[in-house]
Amino acid sequence: MKVDLIVQNAYILTMEGKGVGFIENGSIAVEGNLIQEVGHADEIKRNYQAERIIDATNKLVIPGLIDAHIHTGLAIFRGVAQDMSNWMQKGLWPFMKHMKPEESVKGSMVNIIEGIKAGTTTFCDFDGRMDLIVNNYKKIGARARLAELVNEIPDNVGDLPVGELYPFNPSIGNTKLKRNLELFEKHHESENGRITAILGPHGPDMMSLELLNEIKEYGEKFDTKLHMHVAQGDREIDQMNKRYGKRSIDFLEEHGFLNERLIAVHLTEATNEETEKVAKSGAGMIYCSGSIGIIDGLVPPVYHFLQSGGVACLGSDQAPGNNCNNMFNEMKFAAILNKVKLADPRVFNATIALRMATIEAAKVMGIDHEVGSIRKGKKADLVIINLQDPSFFPLYTKPIRNIVPNLVYSARGHEVETSIIDGQVIMENRKILTIDETAAITEAQKAAEQIAVRVEKDILQNLK
Amino acid sequence: MKVDLIVQNAYILTMEGKGVGFIENGSIAVEGNLIQEVGHADEIKRNYQAERIIDATNKLVIPGLIDAHIHTGLAIFRGVAQDMSNWMQKGLWPFMKHMKPEESVKGSMVNIIEGIKAGTTTFCDFDGRMDLIVNNYKKIGARARLAELVNEIPDNVGDLPVGELYPFNPSIGNTKLKRNLELFEKHHESENGRITAILGPHGPDMMSLELLNEIKEYGEKFDTKLHMHVAQGDREIDQMNKRYGKRSIDFLEEHGFLNERLIAVHLTEATNEETEKVAKSGAGMIYCSGSIGIIDGLVPPVYHFLQSGGVACLGSDQAPGNNCNNMFNEMKFAAILNKVKLADPRVFNATIALRMATIEAAKVMGIDHEVGSIRKGKKADLVIINLQDPSFFPLYTKPIRNIVPNLVYSARGHEVETSIIDGQVIMENRKILTIDETAAITEAQKAAEQIAVRVEKDILQNLK
Repeated sequence: MKVDLIVQNAYILTMEGKGVGFIENGSIAVEGNLIQEVGHADEIKRNYQAERIIDATNKLVIPGLIDAHIHTGLAIFRGVAQDMSNWMQKGLWPFMKHMKPEESVKGSMVNIIEGIKAGTTTFCDFDGRMDLIVNNYKKIGARARLAELVNEIPDNVGDLPVGELYPFNPSIGNTKLKRNLELFEKHHESENGRITAILGPHGPDMMSLELLNEIKEYGEKFDTKLHMHVAQGDREIDQMNKRYGKRSIDFLEEHGFLNERLIAVHLTEATNEETEKVAKSGAGMIYCSGSIGIIDGLVPPVYHFLQSGGVACLGSDQAPGNNCNNMFNEMKFAAILNKVKLADPRVFNATIALRMATIEAAKVMGIDHEVGSIRKGKKADLVIINLQDPSFFPLYTKPIRNIVPNLVYSARGHEVETSIIDGQVIMENRKILTIDETAAITEAQKAAEQIAVRVEKDILQNLK
Repeated sequence: MKVDLIVQNAYILTMEGKGVGFIENGSIAVEGNLIQEVGHADEIKRNYQAERIIDATNKLVIPGLIDAHIHTGLAIFRGVAQDMSNWMQKGLWPFMKHMKPEESVKGSMVNIIEGIKAGTTTFCDFDGRMDLIVNNYKKIGARARLAELVNEIPDNVGDLPVGELYPFNPSIGNTKLKRNLELFEKHHESENGRITAILGPHGPDMMSLELLNEIKEYGEKFDTKLHMHVAQGDREIDQMNKRYGKRSIDFLEEHGFLNERLIAVHLTEATNEETEKVAKSGAGMIYCSGSIGIIDGLVPPVYHFLQSGGVACLGSDQAPGNNCNNMFNEMKFAAILNKVKLADPRVFNATIALRMATIEAAKVMGIDHEVGSIRKGKKADLVIINLQDPSFFPLYTKPIRNIVPNLVYSARGHEVETSIIDGQVIMENRKILTIDETAAITEAQKAAEQIAVRVEKDILQNLK
């Protein structure tokens, strides 16, 4: 049979089954945007021919990594708020209040470039003005599962004293919900199905119960999930206690949010009991190891969530608190931070970390029928990794295999050579083919410099 | 004045003074292997001309990173012993017992390549058969401060049941000490001073008090330091208690080892009181964030050591437990693991982490008169970093500077473009100029495969 593309003679981790689905000498036949077949190289060679063949001898092929939680619209603030308390209000806000949407979009593009160059093929982007950011994904050719950040708090809420109850403004909520709904109308399943929409309630503290309920109804109507920050910090718990006399998870349970539609991000402040409650409800969890480590100095209860039978995955969160958006960083940090939390080197092994950046992420995000593993009929999202890099030296296949630990604990992202998304070669030999990387970075840098001028003026004025 | 090399128009972190010594538009004049002058670009341009000029516009120059503790001879076992207890005896030993010295040396070369490509210019290598490994450093052109791993335990000690007291064999101790002394005789201050020797007692549990005392006397005779594992794990404490009825640090104090000559590696098991004792004695500390996190699931008391007035720095330890030898990994892990340990995002900031990979490392290793910062008269060990990589986007110089947090928390090592060691350009545009990288990796891979055959045979035989 003739197909469009064959990636051949590779070490493959299909991520099918309960482990990593290792194939020592495998090939993958791709037709259109789908995986036509994956199997041993000889078998594929017998059954398929292709116009284009990528020889992956001595290379590793894995499913494209899934970054389950990223705010690309904040990338333009990487490194501005570091090593501090009250990160959001005191660190990020003085800059964020001066950002224009078009500047955010330019920063987002650099962030997407960063992710692709480190093996990410699916970005679950959760940010404001997704109506604009969506175009970055269309242009660069990445897979995206997008949620508009819906809340009803005024733009200048960061100016409030720390600890004061946020005011809610229903007209803001309406505007943002409308944008989220328009994502569904205008972009859901666009680009051959590469772009999909999902609902994005910012957090239980960020909007009225009425708006939360409205979003829940849309979840049922569209049969989709709610990507939401839950128990993300002491700030949130404080707001919930002050407003409702209840902590976030009890509140969400009472109002019928704890179920398979919920994707709970962070759970930083969840107690063991709350964690179990969420895990057992069927809700998924996204753990952002780097950002919560840096911003809060904490390790959320992801291990307890897994032990309670929950499905959890990894996200890189945002550049101004992490500071990289690189799933290799998340995998290694997830494993080590949990080993340290439990004072046990055996917990959270490399296979678990890798699954949480691939197949488990697809499950949490409700896209495991399409991506997250290399299987006949799934979308062809594949990354090819250079095993000749010192990070992967040496390569043992017997008496034990060391590819998975070295992928998770040693590789850093630059070992990814080629990225295929939806059957298209998006990056080859580390060069992105669909856009001009240098121009995108230069343009975004100019935007950052314009923000800097406004921030500085503001600071100087306040000093008067 | 005419010099050999000028690196011009760069952002520079000199690491002089108490912070990072930032120069916004700086140049560095290099004559021979020394820094002739560092200053603002205009000033250098006025005063110096050079045969060779490297334009570093929009790039960052920092002092070459110092990996204070690395065992390159173990690199050939990267990834073989993962996510387990009793890592050394149960994970590493079944492989290590089959390694020949020449195989270890081949693996070491790949490890050094890995380090250079991630900005390391000084390797404080601590391993067996340094008489052979030293040639790798001579060949590739890196700076090395080498210690032979001196102990008097038989090669097959890994076969002992866990917890059994190690037998000491004085003739083994003599052979290894002799090798350490020969390092001084044959190689100390060789290669224009690029290679230096230091003493390397393996640990207080690994040899008799007689041998330890003998090494201490050589320390005084040569006026040099002792690079030694101290309180590195419960295994060591258990050995010390069984042999002497004392924990490591009390034992070392009693016998006069706690002073400025001691470089104490790990201190994983040190209590707060013991940590203070070591810090106040003037001994230095090396913290290996990644390896102790993975192997033991622990965060050694480095923050307490710093708070007690001690001088501490970072090391990458060995590939089979970390698994990369990349100081960018160590800086980020050091900061985040300590933030998490103290549940405080403000502690262990980016500047501290960067200093511990540069100037503080030079102090601990006793080479701060030569390297660790960019200063007139110091050795010209410089790395040039690409600020156009997405990791560094955006670059703010006002109203705040974000280069240091992005260097420590976002960069991953591949952003290092050029490496100058002892005034020589060793790597340019990520290609090492002094050796054939691919050949070195291929040769080492072959050696690994030969070890694998022997390990497998051994395992199969034991199953019989």
